[in-house]
This record gives sequence, C-alpha cells and structure tokens, in this order.
Amino acid sequence: MHPVHYYQTLIAEHFSTLSIEKEPRNLYDPITYILSLGGKRMRPVLTLMAAEVFDTDAGKAMAAATAVELFHNFSLIHDDIMDDAPLRRGNETVHEKWDINTGILSGDAMLILAYQYFEQYEPVVFSALAKLFSKTALEVCEGQQWDVDFEQRDDVTIPEYLKMIEYKTAVLVAAAMKMGAIVAEASTENADLIYDFGLNLGIAFQLQDDYLDAFGDPLTFGKQVGGDIIENKKTYLYLKALEFADATTKAELLHLFSIQPVDNNDKIASVKSVFENTGAAKETQKAIEFYTLKAFATLEKMDIASDKKEKLKDFGENLMKRQV
Amino acid sequence: MHPVHYYQTLIAEHFSTLSIEKEPRNLYDPITYILSLGGKRMRPVLTLMAAEVFDTDAGKAMAAATAVELFHNFSLIHDDIMDDAPLRRGNETVHEKWDINTGILSGDAMLILAYQYFEQYEPVVFSALAKLFSKTALEVCEGQQWDVDFEQRDDVTIPEYLKMIEYKTAVLVAAAMKMGAIVAEASTENADLIYDFGLNLGIAFQLQDDYLDAFGDPLTFGKQVGGDIIENKKTYLYLKALEFADATTKAELLHLFSIQPVDNNDKIASVKSVFENTGAAKETQKAIEFYTLKAFATLEKMDIASDKKEKLKDFGENLMKRQV
Repeated sequence: MHPVHYYQTLIAEHFSTLSIEKEPRNLYDPITYILSLGGKRMRPVLTLMAAEVFDTDAGKAMAAATAVELFHNFSLIHDDIMDDAPLRRGNETVHEKWDINTGILSGDAMLILAYQYFEQYEPVVFSALAKLFSKTALEVCEGQQWDVDFEQRDDVTIPEYLKMIEYKTAVLVAAAMKMGAIVAEASTENADLIYDFGLNLGIAFQLQDDYLDAFGDPLTFGKQVGGDIIENKKTYLYLKALEFADATTKAELLHLFSIQPVDNNDKIASVKSVFENTGAAKETQKAIEFYTLKAFATLEKMDIASDKKEKLKDFGENLMKRQV
Repeated sequence: MHPVHYYQTLIAEHFSTLSIEKEPRNLYDPITYILSLGGKRMRPVLTLMAAEVFDTDAGKAMAAATAVELFHNFSLIHDDIMDDAPLRRGNETVHEKWDINTGILSGDAMLILAYQYFEQYEPVVFSALAKLFSKTALEVCEGQQWDVDFEQRDDVTIPEYLKMIEYKTAVLVAAAMKMGAIVAEASTENADLIYDFGLNLGIAFQLQDDYLDAFGDPLTFGKQVGGDIIENKKTYLYLKALEFADATTKAELLHLFSIQPVDNNDKIASVKSVFENTGAAKETQKAIEFYTLKAFATLEKMDIASDKKEKLKDFGENLMKRQV
C-alpha cells in the first residue's frame, strides 16, 4: 500500500485528462467544469486504497473510483440547485454559471455516465458494482429528502439525524471502499467489513463537519465558520444542546434559531456559548470519537495483514485530526 | 404471441400494484403519483411483445419493461420542469403538485430505481440490459439538450432535426424492444434488427406526432391541436415549409413564428395553410411512410416465423393509423 498522497496524485492526474469531448457541448461542458473544480477527492482515493488493501493494483479500481466521484459531483449539482447555492469550491455553481435546466440535465447525464464507468469490468463484477451503486445512490436521495423534510420539523430526534447523515454522506464513503474490495474480488466478509469501516468513519466525518462549522479555526476551515448557525441548521450540536438545556437556555436557543439578523456575529457567539455551556460541544466530540473507534474496531475483525490495518487506521486518524 | 391489448392489460395490472411503500414519503409519493397517471404504456408493451417474438414468456420481461417505463416517466418529470409545463396527462405535473426540488429529487430516485429493476436478471443479462439502458438514457439526455439548443437557433437543418427526434424519442422505443430480445437471449443479429425496427418506427411515430399536432382531429387528438404552432416549435413540418417556400411565403412564415397573439386561431390557420401550400404537409406524410417502410424492411431480415413478422407489422400499421 502507498501513502494517501500517492492515490491523490493518481486521481488528480486521471481527472485532469477527463474532458468529455462529445456533443452537445451544453450538456457536457458543465460536467467537465464541475470536475475541474477539484475538491478533496476523498471518495475515489478510498476506492483505490481499498483495492490495494486487498492486494489489487489501484489502476484496476480507477474506473470504479471515477464512477464514485462522478456520482458525488452529480449530487452536488442537483443539491446546489435545491439549496439555491451560488458557490461551490469557491467558484460559481453549475446552475449559476449556466441555468437551472442545464444543471438538471447535465446532472442526469452525469449520473448515467457514472454507471457507464462500471462497464469496464466483466459481468459478475459489473453487476456487483452497479447493484451496490444503485442501492447507495437511492439512499443518498433518501438522505437528501430527510434533510429537506427536517427543515420543516421541530421534533427531529438524534437517531433520525444520525440516520439522515448516514444516508446523505456516510453510505457513499462506505460504498466507495467496498467497490475497491469488489474490484479486488475480496471475500464477502472482508468487503462487508470495509463497508462498515467506511460507514462509521463517514458518520464521524460528518459529525466533525458539524463541529468544525461552529468551532473550526476560521483561518484553516474551508467554509464560513458559523454557516450552519446562520442558516438555523438542526445539526447534532443543536439537537444535543436542546436535549441538555434547562428551560431558560432552551428558550434562548429556540429564539436565536428563529432570527435572521443582518450582522450574525452576536448570534454565532451566543449560539456557540449555548453549545459549550450545555455540554453539547463536548458530547459531539464524544460522538465523533465513538464512531471513529467503532470504525477502527471493524478493522480488527478484517482478515488482512496488520500493516494494512495500520495504514487504514492512520488514514482515519489523519481524517479526524483535520481542521478543514 | 398475443394481441396488443393482452400486453397492455398485463402492464396495467402490474403498474396498478406498483406503489412504493418506502420512506421518506416526499421522495416516493411523487413517483407513485406519476405512474398512476397511466398513459399509453407503449414502451413496456413493446418489451413484452419483443420477448414473445423470441419465444419467451412476457412475464420474464416484466422487470425490464418496468425499468423502461420508469425511465420514461423520470424523463417526463425532469422535462416538465424544464418546459415549465403545468399539466401531464390531464393532471398536475409533479413540480406543480409538489415543487421543483421534489421534481428534481424524485426524478433522480426514479432513474436509479429503473436500474434496480434489472437486478432481477442474472449477471450476464443484467450487464447487457444495464449497458443498453445507460447508452440509451444518455442519448435521451443528448436529444433533450439538442431540443433546448434548437430553440435558440435559426439554422437547424433537417438532418439535425431527425437526429434530435431519434435521440429524444426513437432510441427508447428501439431499446425497449431490444431489451425484450436480450431477456429472451435472442441472437445478436435478431436483437440488433428489432432495435432497428423500433428505431425507425419511433422516428415515424414522432414525425406523425408533429403532423397530428397541426392536422389531427381536435375531437380525437389528445393534446391541443396547433400546440406546436402556438409555441413556435421548429418541427419537421416547419423546417420543410421553410425549405420549400418562395421568398414571400418564407417571410410570412418567419413573421408568423415571431408573434404571440392573444387569440391563436388565425395564426394556426395561416401556418397550416403554409404547411399545405408549400408541400411540407405532404412531404411529412412521405417521411412518415418512409420510416415506417424502413422499419418493416428490417422485419424481413429477421430470423423469426412469418406469423410473428406479421404481428409486428400489424402493430406498426395500427400505430401509424392512430389519430391520437
């Protein structure tokens, strides 16, 4: 197995050549555009890494990794329309640069293109990859719909929230890894275990995203610190704060999440105080640790050499140490 | 082989039970809704029929037929958003009944569900069906994009128009039939020939749609007669009229297609006169006949019993005799 940056370089090189030269340009240019914006490429890196965990050359998993990244970007294009987001990775979103109809149709094409990348594998592997992909893609849609539904509800529970982030974010991380295992023709047990590793790491990753959105370092955090607070998002921090707060603090938090001030600095500071004073911040850190350790425990059960387990653990630890 | 209404009944019975009982309801209710609106179900009928042409029970092809109909309805949901259409089959469109975001996300889920229906077949058949499906789905997206692009252009050629309707409409009819052949494990030659049969019949069908939109009987034509004229759509009739018209008539047609009068009756009548007087109406009928005969010629080359060829020909002739 190679260090993470090796896979990142492979992916970056591969995507730099991935320009779709087909007509009509108005369908394919937006696809080339969003892929050119980069991003961490965490998911395809995990696919390549998983293939090598099971003694298969990363190159053999590149088509599956590409499908995963195409799907992720398809979901970004459609989510950005739904969220009316102007920016993605510091650049105009597809529906801003073109229009909503272009975003819808190019997104659709991208989802189909993702499936086509599996065609490079023989029928049994193709079939296994496409089935996992469809199951995962449908769960991501369900997660997105739960997220939309939760905006209108004031009785979202912690288990519901965890299910939502599992579907919206973690299943794709899990599937990305399992696809590497499928390409490598690993045993069903090992493939399922690496799926569980990815799933728990994905949940920890999203909870950390919630945490850093409030408590991240503005100098290193990629997005605006306090963005979730400005948008009154019902994150893990918020739900735990409501659960732990006394009546007065609960009323204060509900009030803070009902206002849209012109200057958000006071609101952000007040909400962060509530998150800390109720113990919600600490509880979120505990949950991040819980899911990270759950992921690592899955590794123990895997039938692979211990140096490979160490590599996967290192990857998880580095991911959880991130400030961005 | 059974008569067409036998397959229609099978499909109707199957779709009447096809209610997706999964959560979240806001994702799956719109899918159940659009499927409940019915329609001619021409595409899934063709899949079942093709399976029986190749001596395989229609029931075995039901999952593939369902995938085709789901894809067709996915494309209707997204197209209706793009066209800002309020009605579909006489009922509210999905984005009108819910909202645009619901239409986008439920459409996405429906495209993925379509792929999942192929999972009922073993890997080699699954793989063949999913590959044909992806190729076709991408072509339908390309056809839709050409259609959108053509609205902004005044130099669309007849070959470009034919390519657009081939991609937007005919390839799905063709693929629907080939899927029946794949499920029946027909020879590659026969599968390709029935694809060509469907492709040419699909082109004839769409040209006839153009023709009936202007010259159909208002009492039997399902949509508003003259709808394409009101919307200044560059149909085969229009492009042929421009090609055949003298300078004065061309100027008149261009003027008529630049105005949006409150009462469209005069405009429709004038445009129809131009379509008739230039010979464009007759030329369109000739093109319909050309593609229908081309489809029938493909049948001759097929290695199947002659009574089956007759059945397929009967189906084609009935389709081309339609007034709706």
